[in-house]
Amino acid sequence: MPTPITSTLTSDQQATTGEALQGTVVDLIDLSLIAKQAHWNVLGRNFRSVHLALDELVTVARDFTDEAAERSTAIGVSPDGRASTVAGQSSAKGIGEGWTSDEDVINIVVENLAAIIDRLRARIAVTEEADPVTQDLLISITARLEQLHWMWQAQVA
Amino acid sequence: MPTPITSTLTSDQQATTGEALQGTVVDLIDLSLIAKQAHWNVLGRNFRSVHLALDELVTVARDFTDEAAERSTAIGVSPDGRASTVAGQSSAKGIGEGWTSDEDVINIVVENLAAIIDRLRARIAVTEEADPVTQDLLISITARLEQLHWMWQAQVA
Amino acid sequence: MPTPITSTLTSDQQATTGEALQGTVVDLIDLSLIAKQAHWNVLGRNFRSVHLALDELVTVARDFTDEAAERSTAIGVSPDGRASTVAGQSSAKGIGEGWTSDEDVINIVVENLAAIIDRLRARIAVTEEADPVTQDLLISITARLEQLHWMWQAQVA
Amino acid sequence: MPTPITSTLTSDQQATTGEALQGTVVDLIDLSLIAKQAHWNVLGRNFRSVHLALDELVTVARDFTDEAAERSTAIGVSPDGRASTVAGQSSAKGIGEGWTSDEDVINIVVENLAAIIDRLRARIAVTEEADPVTQDLLISITARLEQLHWMWQAQVA
Amino acid sequence: MPTPITSTLTSDQQATTGEALQGTVVDLIDLSLIAKQAHWNVLGRNFRSVHLALDELVTVARDFTDEAAERSTAIGVSPDGRASTVAGQSSAKGIGEGWTSDEDVINIVVENLAAIIDRLRARIAVTEEADPVTQDLLISITARLEQLHWMWQAQVA
Amino acid sequence: MPTPITSTLTSDQQATTGEALQGTVVDLIDLSLIAKQAHWNVLGRNFRSVHLALDELVTVARDFTDEAAERSTAIGVSPDGRASTVAGQSSAKGIGEGWTSDEDVINIVVENLAAIIDRLRARIAVTEEADPVTQDLLISITARLEQLHWMWQAQVA
Amino acid sequence: MPTPITSTLTSDQQATTGEALQGTVVDLIDLSLIAKQAHWNVLGRNFRSVHLALDELVTVARDFTDEAAERSTAIGVSPDGRASTVAGQSSAKGIGEGWTSDEDVINIVVENLAAIIDRLRARIAVTEEADPVTQDLLISITARLEQLHWMWQAQVA
Amino acid sequence: MPTPITSTLTSDQQATTGEALQGTVVDLIDLSLIAKQAHWNVLGRNFRSVHLALDELVTVARDFTDEAAERSTAIGVSPDGRASTVAGQSSAKGIGEGWTSDEDVINIVVENLAAIIDRLRARIAVTEEADPVTQDLLISITARLEQLHWMWQAQVA
Amino acid sequence: MPTPITSTLTSDQQATTGEALQGTVVDLIDLSLIAKQAHWNVLGRNFRSVHLALDELVTVARDFTDEAAERSTAIGVSPDGRASTVAGQSSAKGIGEGWTSDEDVINIVVENLAAIIDRLRARIAVTEEADPVTQDLLISITARLEQLHWMWQAQVA
Amino acid sequence: MPTPITSTLTSDQQATTGEALQGTVVDLIDLSLIAKQAHWNVLGRNFRSVHLALDELVTVARDFTDEAAERSTAIGVSPDGRASTVAGQSSAKGIGEGWTSDEDVINIVVENLAAIIDRLRARIAVTEEADPVTQDLLISITARLEQLHWMWQAQVA
Amino acid sequence: MPTPITSTLTSDQQATTGEALQGTVVDLIDLSLIAKQAHWNVLGRNFRSVHLALDELVTVARDFTDEAAERSTAIGVSPDGRASTVAGQSSAKGIGEGWTSDEDVINIVVENLAAIIDRLRARIAVTEEADPVTQDLLISITARLEQLHWMWQAQVA
Amino acid sequence: MPTPITSTLTSDQQATTGEALQGTVVDLIDLSLIAKQAHWNVLGRNFRSVHLALDELVTVARDFTDEAAERSTAIGVSPDGRASTVAGQSSAKGIGEGWTSDEDVINIVVENLAAIIDRLRARIAVTEEADPVTQDLLISITARLEQLHWMWQAQVA
Repeated sequence: MPTPITSTLTSDQQATTGEALQGTVVDLIDLSLIAKQAHWNVLGRNFRSVHLALDELVTVARDFTDEAAERSTAIGVSPDGRASTVAGQSSAKGIGEGWTSDEDVINIVVENLAAIIDRLRARIAVTEEADPVTQDLLISITARLEQLHWMWQAQVA
Repeated sequence: MPTPITSTLTSDQQATTGEALQGTVVDLIDLSLIAKQAHWNVLGRNFRSVHLALDELVTVARDFTDEAAERSTAIGVSPDGRASTVAGQSSAKGIGEGWTSDEDVINIVVENLAAIIDRLRARIAVTEEADPVTQDLLISITARLEQLHWMWQAQVA
Repeated sequence: MPTPITSTLTSDQQATTGEALQGTVVDLIDLSLIAKQAHWNVLGRNFRSVHLALDELVTVARDFTDEAAERSTAIGVSPDGRASTVAGQSSAKGIGEGWTSDEDVINIVVENLAAIIDRLRARIAVTEEADPVTQDLLISITARLEQLHWMWQAQVA
Repeated sequence: MPTPITSTLTSDQQATTGEALQGTVVDLIDLSLIAKQAHWNVLGRNFRSVHLALDELVTVARDFTDEAAERSTAIGVSPDGRASTVAGQSSAKGIGEGWTSDEDVINIVVENLAAIIDRLRARIAVTEEADPVTQDLLISITARLEQLHWMWQAQVA
Repeated sequence: MPTPITSTLTSDQQATTGEALQGTVVDLIDLSLIAKQAHWNVLGRNFRSVHLALDELVTVARDFTDEAAERSTAIGVSPDGRASTVAGQSSAKGIGEGWTSDEDVINIVVENLAAIIDRLRARIAVTEEADPVTQDLLISITARLEQLHWMWQAQVA
Repeated sequence: MPTPITSTLTSDQQATTGEALQGTVVDLIDLSLIAKQAHWNVLGRNFRSVHLALDELVTVARDFTDEAAERSTAIGVSPDGRASTVAGQSSAKGIGEGWTSDEDVINIVVENLAAIIDRLRARIAVTEEADPVTQDLLISITARLEQLHWMWQAQVA
Repeated sequence: MPTPITSTLTSDQQATTGEALQGTVVDLIDLSLIAKQAHWNVLGRNFRSVHLALDELVTVARDFTDEAAERSTAIGVSPDGRASTVAGQSSAKGIGEGWTSDEDVINIVVENLAAIIDRLRARIAVTEEADPVTQDLLISITARLEQLHWMWQAQVA
Repeated sequence: MPTPITSTLTSDQQATTGEALQGTVVDLIDLSLIAKQAHWNVLGRNFRSVHLALDELVTVARDFTDEAAERSTAIGVSPDGRASTVAGQSSAKGIGEGWTSDEDVINIVVENLAAIIDRLRARIAVTEEADPVTQDLLISITARLEQLHWMWQAQVA
Repeated sequence: MPTPITSTLTSDQQATTGEALQGTVVDLIDLSLIAKQAHWNVLGRNFRSVHLALDELVTVARDFTDEAAERSTAIGVSPDGRASTVAGQSSAKGIGEGWTSDEDVINIVVENLAAIIDRLRARIAVTEEADPVTQDLLISITARLEQLHWMWQAQVA
Repeated sequence: MPTPITSTLTSDQQATTGEALQGTVVDLIDLSLIAKQAHWNVLGRNFRSVHLALDELVTVARDFTDEAAERSTAIGVSPDGRASTVAGQSSAKGIGEGWTSDEDVINIVVENLAAIIDRLRARIAVTEEADPVTQDLLISITARLEQLHWMWQAQVA
Repeated sequence: MPTPITSTLTSDQQATTGEALQGTVVDLIDLSLIAKQAHWNVLGRNFRSVHLALDELVTVARDFTDEAAERSTAIGVSPDGRASTVAGQSSAKGIGEGWTSDEDVINIVVENLAAIIDRLRARIAVTEEADPVTQDLLISITARLEQLHWMWQAQVA
Repeated sequence: MPTPITSTLTSDQQATTGEALQGTVVDLIDLSLIAKQAHWNVLGRNFRSVHLALDELVTVARDFTDEAAERSTAIGVSPDGRASTVAGQSSAKGIGEGWTSDEDVINIVVENLAAIIDRLRARIAVTEEADPVTQDLLISITARLEQLHWMWQAQVA
């Protein structure tokens, strides 16, 4: 099927922007699955606090996933958020299996957020010329994830 | 780490029930990812109707994922909902990449629901003796998915 | 038109379950009409209290009608809730025409609830093997109607 | 029991108005049952849209039923909304049994609304002298049903 | 000060309509005060039910007071709802001082509603030619008060 | 395309009523644009109060526009609310360009409301025979606009 | 009927407290009627602001009326809030008839509040010994009325 | 463990106030259990009205229990609200076992409220010097319970 | 008074089911009192988290108490939830008096939940034959308490 | 009147930005009128879906109109959103008169959105230097309209 | 400007009360700034719990600031809550600059609350004669701050 | 303590951005205190309108303070919002002590907003290179403050 959704971007702009958004979609889905995994498996004195904060992180990750994927459709690029794609392309650090202590969970969240933010910063740079509308969305996502990065890091600082 | 959460189940009951729940968690996460994928990529005259119905399906899948995973923790079995686990163990039929017509999306949803319901029916049977509390949850999930299966099938009936 | 909605039930299970659900749909629609009839025609010192309680009963009856009818569609059996079907098949005791005293209304509600609960108890028994998902719904309906039966009976106890 | 509720209407006015309201109550209950029947049995590509619109129609029919019946009590005339009365006196066109295509459902709704509106227009005329308060209610009901008639007819126009 | 608010009514229409509205304002304020008085002083087995129903009556009376008074201003006639005006001009039957049994309260409410409805019916007739916009408001008020009249009368029917 | 929406009105009634509604639609859209224009351009000590009151007027005008236009469709007459139609057919007085003092704005609103009410009064008269259902809507619109006319006029009275 | 509601107060305490509460009930009802009268009849550049503020005053007066009257019943003293009682016993300053300028309305509100607060201060003093529970209510009423007194006075300061 | 929470009260003030609050906590928990017991076991024509009013009483008792207990912690005195403490120290009159007629329930509630109010009045007196902050809370509790005492007594007055 | 509420259960079924429900009512009331006691007396670094989680536990215990007690009335067995009954019959482990560290509170909650769940599992078994409707309620209660048991145990795992 | 609202922009920046905003205001008002026109006149099998989606588009257009117009006032440039201005200056494609099929409506919406987005992209470019605050608003508007453009185009893709 | 707001207090009472309120306003503003400062700068394992609790404290401090300042205006004394006044007059203990551990934050909050409560207790004493209405407000503020003092102290007890 | 929160910014970027945010935090806190001071001390005919608008300004200032301070923490720079810091570093114009006329208040607000906006415009420029995420936040704050600046200036224009 030829590309069915048209946009005002040139094909170069579309390619650059589409790649930035596809990477963002995959990273955020993985972040939501990692945070849910931790939400269920966390143990320790701070269980309740961490368990609740993880669900806030899941909500953030899910909402931005949708915004990034629908931005991709808006510029005419089909997004791919299937399990195997996420498993294969994510730039997140992941999480091990089984019950995990609250300290370990906090460190895992901080590491994963740092890795994803790093990629987002690069995507903000490359989309500045290609599509300022997409850049603005990436800035919003980065702003929120950096806020959460501080909140999680503050627990081990 | 030895199993940190205790329950009243025998280890046989725990193994049977834990396996049923782990399979359910994986199937439901995959269902939520498939439905989101379709939500973004659907095209056609019924776009709006299908697009909205898919988000209702996503919500259902996500809510039951959480209930199944937290039932697993309640019986002392660590659930695993990571992307690679989902990609490797899901019993769902999946969805192809790229833009997809509304007719195809409807058929894909019907097939995936049918496959997952089939597995749930089997798990209802095996948990009857092992843990009636878990069985009750699986019955609730099946009731809702069978209702959705009718609604999606009615569109192509 | 051949049956357009498929399910995992055998045709025997489908027949048994479908019959139980059709009877439930008819009984509950009739209950909602009887309760509305009483809601309008009740007279007496306890008018306000009975008038309000009847609307709660109407809401319960309507909500469970929908759940029972949609469970029927989910197993591939077309439900029938038309006025003539209700008039012909209901197992409820009914209500006479015209203004009715509050005492009479209370007795009428108690009798109708008792008759419907009796039929539901039988349907819980026959669906245990045929379809535990449907049985679970019938148990929920019975639980609520038995609670209301107590509340109405308590007024004349 | 002699008429227990008094009003400022003469007995002629009461008879004319009471008849108009009783007819309206019966028609609207039947409309609500027909719409629910269609809500459960509709099939086809527009299933979801029609299924949802039918529930809006049910809500409208139920709310106006209550207003018409309570207007009847307010003028001292006992309303009758029992299943057998509805089955025997309704001026609606009805609906056949079993699964029904979305196209057929739309036509059935349009026909039923047209028949009921026709009767309401006549009742507006006869109540103008008898009771302007009741006429005002009938005008409100007609306004809403004519709006819905347009919306349903627009689907086949 | 000369009349500061202009309208499309002739001065005859304005006089007729203004008088109808002023009478309605006074009657409704008095009704709200009578109902509050009864709300505080009622005694007896049905205390709670009557106490609550009286507050619903107060709310109705207050809301319609405001609508009638602001309709008066809209046609350029200053409304008068001061205590002494209400005490001097009300067509309501009033209520005696001190604790009052629930049976007496119900009869008092029925009598007062009947007297006010009677006056409203006359005002509907006289405003038909003078101002159909005001007539429509008076019809709305009458419809609601007649509904409440039935509900209160039903308690002693 | 021949008229696709049917109604119970004769073609004369339809023409009379359709014309009344089309004029109302145009006047109300223009009123909403005038009020928004004033909302942005008002200056002066009463800026905040006038700015807020204008948005209430916008909301009223928009809601009644929709009711009038959908009443037109319900009787089978296509409404026209396009910018050029509004610019060409409106009976409102309009508003000048640029920043405007609060006193001027109040006078502009009073004049525009007066002009539109005048036309509505005439339409109430002509639709009484043609279609009482439409007349009832025009009465509702007039009632609300006359209330607002008082409120705005009171500021300069 | 002998006093049907008992309390822990001596008959002296009951008399003192009952008198304080009866005076408060009457003053507050009168305040609510005066404020409504002004709400309808106010004219001038600050119409909207004063019109809205008067409704807040009405709400305050009505809520405290109920609290004072129900405190009276709680100590076994029947409250009297009928129109003629209010007209005869109120310590408020009242308001003249007809359209009133916003400046005059503000001064009228300030005067009436001042008169009522003065009486409340005296009642706080006399109930300190008689019934600290009632005193606490009178302090609450005074606190809120003094806040409103400031807000109204600030408009003419 | 030495007293871990400090306050500005002297140890005498703390002892007096702590004792008043502990008695209040116990009485209110008992009141909530008595009211729930009656809520379940009441029979008779006024079942619904009494059943609902008892749940309002339960809510009041529970909310004030929490306020009294947390006031105790705020002054450094550990509150005790365990079942055996309530069973041993309550000054309420209690309720017999088994189904109870609505008339008996009303009398039981009136008696229990009277007994608890009596104790609260004494505690208001003793805390005046010891801690005006606690006294203010006890006044609030008494005000509400005396209001409820009137409402329940009014049913048998 | 002979048993005033009838049901479809045999007297054996009624006895078995009634006993299971009475035990559940007592255990849950005690759980709510123990959790409140801990809510007030907890000390330590995790005070806030534990304090809030205890109130969630109180809400759960109270809601299920009501459901179990009203299920008992529905089968015609009078429930008993008075303080002395709770103090005498509870199968919970209880809690000591005075300020308690957060670690101790967590262990106390885990122990009490484990004891109550153990009894509920036995009651699920004995009600399977006697009354599947009651069994379904006991399964719901167990599901929720086992979830909470995991959440509290996770804090010390 | 000289420009009464000051800003930090130079007069060149103000002119460039004001022009961009004025064009946006006009385009968005026209879009809202076109979408409403289609909302009323659409016919066809997808009537309901298109009818609802058009109202979402109206809401978006109205909200952004207000933001753009108030951004204009914030930089000291009076916006002009009167009917004749819109009719004369809009860059939208418009819509024909009369009943319109759902397919045609979808194409009309897609075309109008494309034209407006094209203009917005140009305005984003010219305001980058002139006023980044305005540019940020234009980016937000474009982001949302491009999302809607995809959703409408997807229906014909 | 001479004092523009009048009250019933003598000038001595006004001076005493005004001073008490001014001190309270300053202390509460400082408390809100200290709590916000801690909200941003807290670090450590209990970050999330402390971070959230601090915002509750901010809300309490802000709400009471407004009540105290508006009580001051109500008695005719202009309150002063400017930054330099707060910096110069506050009786709070303050907080150091920079990142702060959660343990230190808890101790800082406890100390600041203790200092402010101490001052409030003295103000309750001095206003008893001067103005019982103000005293009642100071009691409310103290009650809430002492509750929060317990909650914070419990974390280090 | 070394900087405990890491970010992707270089230390130069961090210094530039941190300084911009610290200035913004201080200015916004001061704005909130100035607006509250005016909220309490304003006098004059427009008291109510200005009093309400000031609270909206307070809410805006407080919300943006939090966003700016938490953006500072997110980039690893500790924000300082203590009273003495605000008193010493604010770039706002401030407000005099005592009662202030509404005209003066409006001018004071306009001046303070202008001064703060001026500083924000400069910070937008310096953060463009240093941190586009922070720049985006500063643009949002400026957009809202410039809107408010127009609204306040319009009152004296």
